[in-house]
Amino acid sequence: MKVVRWAGAFPASPDRMTKTNLFETPRFFLDVYVFEPGQSQKPHVHDGNDKIYLVTEGRGVFQVGEERAELGAGDAVLAPAGVVHGAENTGVARLVALAFMAPHPKPPTV
Amino acid sequence: MKVVRWAGAFPASPDRMTKTNLFETPRFFLDVYVFEPGQSQKPHVHDGNDKIYLVTEGRGVFQVGEERAELGAGDAVLAPAGVVHGAENTGVARLVALAFMAPHPKPPTV
Repeated sequence: MKVVRWAGAFPASPDRMTKTNLFETPRFFLDVYVFEPGQSQKPHVHDGNDKIYLVTEGRGVFQVGEERAELGAGDAVLAPAGVVHGAENTGVARLVALAFMAPHPKPPTV
Repeated sequence: MKVVRWAGAFPASPDRMTKTNLFETPRFFLDVYVFEPGQSQKPHVHDGNDKIYLVTEGRGVFQVGEERAELGAGDAVLAPAGVVHGAENTGVARLVALAFMAPHPKPPTV
């Protein structure tokens, strides 16, 4: 029984946003994304995978399709398969978000 | 672009634990479970679906397989497909947890 922390401190980088995996199975993954001010996840598409972003710290601008919205801690947004999505820390504090994706785009060999 | 709150107040019941859906697609669902003191989700198994519990408020005892552990806000645990799992609020304060499951056991018709 693997208990992990989803809140707290996670690795950050001055160079780019970081991803820390919390759980992964053949069916999904749960990552923590850390964006320093100015860092972003460029808009991209997953053809067959749905994603949820849950903001746990800070604020940022999230894009889903043609829409963009500023989200803060406690907000979540769905990026369905086939829809362009991304995130950007436009503020001055660290942005942290959980990212769930299913199915796993690169299933681990277990 | 549907933005929802994953933190905050959700429906509770004096009779049993409650489930509030935040997002669902054919590929997964994300629910909020609210357990008043003494309430539980009885141990059960999903043959082909993995689940993650993320505790967002309070404390409770979570079971995965033969193991049981007390989790608090900020903790998360994985219940893989085929493994018995459940949760119980053994404390005196409300327990709130996010539950992410993939694939969706009863996919919505969309």
